[in-house]
Amino acid sequence: MTTLHDELLMMGNAAVEAARQLVRLSSDQKNRILIGMARELENRQGAILAANAADLEAGRVAGLNAAMLDRLQLNPARIKAMADGLRAITQLPDPVGRTLRRWTRPNGLKIRKISVPLGVIAIIFESRPNVTADATALCLKSSNAVILRGGKEALRSNLAIAEALQAGGAAEGLPPHSVQMVRTADRDAVRELVQMEGRIDLVMPRGGESLIRAVVEQARVPVIKHYKGVCHVYVDKSADPQMALSIVENAKCQRPGVCNAMETLLIHQSVAGTILPHICKRLSACGVELRGDEIARSIVPGMKPADETDWPAEYLDLILAVKVVPSLEAAIEHINRYGSRHSDAIITKSASAWRRFARDVDSAAIYWNASTRFTDGGEFGFGAEIGISTDKLHARGPMGLEELTTYKYVVTGTGQVRS
Amino acid sequence: MTTLHDELLMMGNAAVEAARQLVRLSSDQKNRILIGMARELENRQGAILAANAADLEAGRVAGLNAAMLDRLQLNPARIKAMADGLRAITQLPDPVGRTLRRWTRPNGLKIRKISVPLGVIAIIFESRPNVTADATALCLKSSNAVILRGGKEALRSNLAIAEALQAGGAAEGLPPHSVQMVRTADRDAVRELVQMEGRIDLVMPRGGESLIRAVVEQARVPVIKHYKGVCHVYVDKSADPQMALSIVENAKCQRPGVCNAMETLLIHQSVAGTILPHICKRLSACGVELRGDEIARSIVPGMKPADETDWPAEYLDLILAVKVVPSLEAAIEHINRYGSRHSDAIITKSASAWRRFARDVDSAAIYWNASTRFTDGGEFGFGAEIGISTDKLHARGPMGLEELTTYKYVVTGTGQVRS
Repeated sequence: MTTLHDELLMMGNAAVEAARQLVRLSSDQKNRILIGMARELENRQGAILAANAADLEAGRVAGLNAAMLDRLQLNPARIKAMADGLRAITQLPDPVGRTLRRWTRPNGLKIRKISVPLGVIAIIFESRPNVTADATALCLKSSNAVILRGGKEALRSNLAIAEALQAGGAAEGLPPHSVQMVRTADRDAVRELVQMEGRIDLVMPRGGESLIRAVVEQARVPVIKHYKGVCHVYVDKSADPQMALSIVENAKCQRPGVCNAMETLLIHQSVAGTILPHICKRLSACGVELRGDEIARSIVPGMKPADETDWPAEYLDLILAVKVVPSLEAAIEHINRYGSRHSDAIITKSASAWRRFARDVDSAAIYWNASTRFTDGGEFGFGAEIGISTDKLHARGPMGLEELTTYKYVVTGTGQVRS
Repeated sequence: MTTLHDELLMMGNAAVEAARQLVRLSSDQKNRILIGMARELENRQGAILAANAADLEAGRVAGLNAAMLDRLQLNPARIKAMADGLRAITQLPDPVGRTLRRWTRPNGLKIRKISVPLGVIAIIFESRPNVTADATALCLKSSNAVILRGGKEALRSNLAIAEALQAGGAAEGLPPHSVQMVRTADRDAVRELVQMEGRIDLVMPRGGESLIRAVVEQARVPVIKHYKGVCHVYVDKSADPQMALSIVENAKCQRPGVCNAMETLLIHQSVAGTILPHICKRLSACGVELRGDEIARSIVPGMKPADETDWPAEYLDLILAVKVVPSLEAAIEHINRYGSRHSDAIITKSASAWRRFARDVDSAAIYWNASTRFTDGGEFGFGAEIGISTDKLHARGPMGLEELTTYKYVVTGTGQVRS
């Protein structure tokens, strides 16, 4: 009997072999494979929608809520969007084979640092089946093999999509096992995956905090992740009031359910009396529930009180914690203490306040007079995004194709030996 | 009663606070601190040697062998070398604050990717006390706080050195707790350290494979490491015989006990008959024990037989495994299967063989007509080295100051919001 352990080991070994072959593909070959995958996704629309209908039916029986069913649902437009996503990746520059640095040593050795694929990437995700196509495209474009593990509620949909990608890719020369989907819903598969040292080079968990914590606790291979986004906007004493108003509204209300939305507003005490009432009025009009500290509530009566659980909270909703701070330093201290190292903004006319904020706030992206909502691969101009990292090793902030590569040193000599 | 857990948590919290202050130091301030540390190391030579004498005495009683005692031993010359090492680091460029990339988005947002410290680095090492000074210097120069945990046999020496570094640094403005040494020999301290998510940004274990495996299995924070160095030299069919001879000798014999020394020689079957006897003669003259596969032994009678345990072996000694391969592809396949992704060389006159080797061998450093012994921060021109990584995430190969930094995105706008 094949155990789960053996099954995943076989997948890991097959992925390592695929990765060895993937480094040999040219940019053109990779792009042809992506086009083939897109075509086959569209060709198999009927089969994919049928698999998705079965997932949806099972989800309804299992009592998934409306938001979860919506995330799970596919339709012709969503399948076309996946296919178009694959085609869009062909237009991006190949991240592999870039010369990152080159130099010559006094002994004549020529050293080149060049970008190469990571090897095998495991993506562990939750309900959205489009991740299967999006992640595959980015891994392939960066010449990595991928092992996908989706949520059990989307298993049929994910398998149907993966089969389309495999078939469409194979027709254009995709090495076997370059794209593999874990076929079991057994939770132990995740543990097996993240402990396959020597076979998996990177694990990227995408989903809720409990999924990510489980991965980190079990992992023996490197993990890049973000647990959550507790983003701040700090309105400094020299902020432009109109700018503060429009950035705060945008950071909170434009799409509150995402990781780069603001969760806490900090405002300097010397301007809180004049600016905070306007901000609160504007946010209340957008339906935002405000939770303030004592000073904020003295300025804007009727605000709910915030407690210690509010400062580290990721609401992902139309709720905002509000704190009045005595200084720039206090704002920085609050962000470093309660934030999630994701994205934080200062609204100020003072260049020196900005420099201090940019230096001392320990987050992936720091904004001066702009909304935190720009922390995103597309908004940064990366063309595509595989995720956002609040870690500090290897990749920080939005991760595009370059972040799916590592490097090697290639050193050419003429017989040099070390003395 | 303070538990070990509490004690390490306090160290972690203090290190986080120190890291926040370290980002504010200028390059000049950091260099003055390094000079102060060097001076105090020399001032305290007597105390350090006394502590070391106590360690040596305890080590003799505990039955440490001569090599271990030698690694542990300090003397005035070794203390001066540590101090000179600190001074040398002042001459290197500051790795923090470099603009890695800058661009402007169509909406006018200006994005800069700048290098910043990692934050808090934990170094877990074995017997050589000089690591205390060397690692501290590199962490400080890169504005990181450091928590050191050395081997129990060197605890008194390490504490004496750390106290000198702390006192010398403090006199020049080093923030408190920037350099901390774990004061207990309790093994559980390592587990506590490597599970301090949110306080430790990177763990670097330096020592034997069992130490490193224990760290990886327990860690919840990122680890960069190399388990071992199983390096290969492949003598291709179009190799220059004289060059092959001198590189093979250098890679094996110049310093056999280090991770970038060759452990396995691969040679193409079409030249094995002519070149291998010369190589074996030369290596035997250096005292190397040869262990060959069947074909090698048919060419060079008297060689010991190699078995499956020899191919992945890191001898760190005057022992060499020898295998005759039918092709370049077979050599690449052997290296990827048995190697440790460290350093591998090809000796060939063929540029196409080199390109294939460089592309397909999945190691940190790949050499063409040069010895594997050059994989070293000093030889690469990095000025200093904190370790060598055979991982692929964040840093690969020799790690210098730049590898102790991460980056952040600083984004400046004029009121931009996302639509």
